[in-house]
Amino acid sequence: MSAEPRLVEVRKNVLKQNDLIARGLRERFRQAGVFVVSLVSSPGSGKTAFLEKILTLLHARCRVAALVGDLATENDAERLARSKARVRQITTGTVCHLEAAMIQKALDDWDLTQLDFLFVENVGNLVCPSSYDLGENLRFVLLSVTEGEDKPLKYPAIFDSADVAIITKMDLAEAVEFNEQAANTNIQAVRPGMHVLKVSSKTGQGMDEFLDFLETQRNRSRAAIAV
Amino acid sequence: MSAEPRLVEVRKNVLKQNDLIARGLRERFRQAGVFVVSLVSSPGSGKTAFLEKILTLLHARCRVAALVGDLATENDAERLARSKARVRQITTGTVCHLEAAMIQKALDDWDLTQLDFLFVENVGNLVCPSSYDLGENLRFVLLSVTEGEDKPLKYPAIFDSADVAIITKMDLAEAVEFNEQAANTNIQAVRPGMHVLKVSSKTGQGMDEFLDFLETQRNRSRAAIAV
Repeated sequence: MSAEPRLVEVRKNVLKQNDLIARGLRERFRQAGVFVVSLVSSPGSGKTAFLEKILTLLHARCRVAALVGDLATENDAERLARSKARVRQITTGTVCHLEAAMIQKALDDWDLTQLDFLFVENVGNLVCPSSYDLGENLRFVLLSVTEGEDKPLKYPAIFDSADVAIITKMDLAEAVEFNEQAANTNIQAVRPGMHVLKVSSKTGQGMDEFLDFLETQRNRSRAAIAV
Repeated sequence: MSAEPRLVEVRKNVLKQNDLIARGLRERFRQAGVFVVSLVSSPGSGKTAFLEKILTLLHARCRVAALVGDLATENDAERLARSKARVRQITTGTVCHLEAAMIQKALDDWDLTQLDFLFVENVGNLVCPSSYDLGENLRFVLLSVTEGEDKPLKYPAIFDSADVAIITKMDLAEAVEFNEQAANTNIQAVRPGMHVLKVSSKTGQGMDEFLDFLETQRNRSRAAIAV
């Protein structure tokens, strides 16, 4: 792998460039008063179903919008549009993660002062998105009960880069003999003290608690800015 | 993203280098008479459980071994060791896919003439492994019933790079209301004519058919070499 050192060097430049753009985005979000939440997980963990549920519930009481990243299709944006929230798809082509520049470009013509919450759904990937700051206030990593309790140990960087873990598809926990204690132990091993929430987009389990948590985080962020 | 064109250029060099090493590996496998099969999927699709089942069933009747790629842990090698087959872990660190050079290094001290089948389990990732030839005879892409039927459309490159699709966790198909016809339609849309097998590592469903398929492919490959 003779080309590797050069690749590492170029990648560092890309990441540095990304961090600069992310910093600009974070400042723009702060000034606009919008609270930005990103979702990362492996493909099929239920990001889109969860986001559709969130948008549908929040749309009734505040101003919400979403950006959704995907390699090839606009399926997610079409699904999320059912929530009536504003949604824009970011099609990445062969790029396996979202970058701050893609968020910047997608939001170019948006008036962010008209939003309370902006959600960003990353490409399904438990590895590469961990390196890219998107300027978000909070990053949620999703882990579905069907994936196995060992995922935090096997993909530590993404759990470490996130602020909160969400265990999804709780309605299937019994069918797959999900071991909640093992999952929690593995999450805490990678990220001690990490907050963990459990939800089911199908039954609605845990959604009230999730929305309360989100509201509290947003209020804390606003209070911190006011101080 | 000013650094992108340079990144693309360096990545092309890495891929070219990878292809050269993969070509060498393929020739080494051919000369040794070992049939090499790789498995790719998203994290949690059941690659390791499926591979453990395969190794356990095949170990009784022929000479099998496996390489397993993972970012951080040796858990998979430990699980697979229960099959009694020879297993070596490749820990990739932050690299989100296996490369031919990693396979070459891991096999450095192996006498491949002592093997009938070698299995290679990639890092759980539905994007990046698609670009890296590992010198394998066959690449299987796994899709679990819990992930959603749309995954082939959302991650077309990986389905296109694979030879056969394996639908896993069939024992959960009813619980998650898996739509087999939709999954098949989406697979065929991305890769027309792709062979699809359905399995459950838990119940053993489809394993006989899978092993028959594997044996047939190996015999065809040997016949082609003999001609």
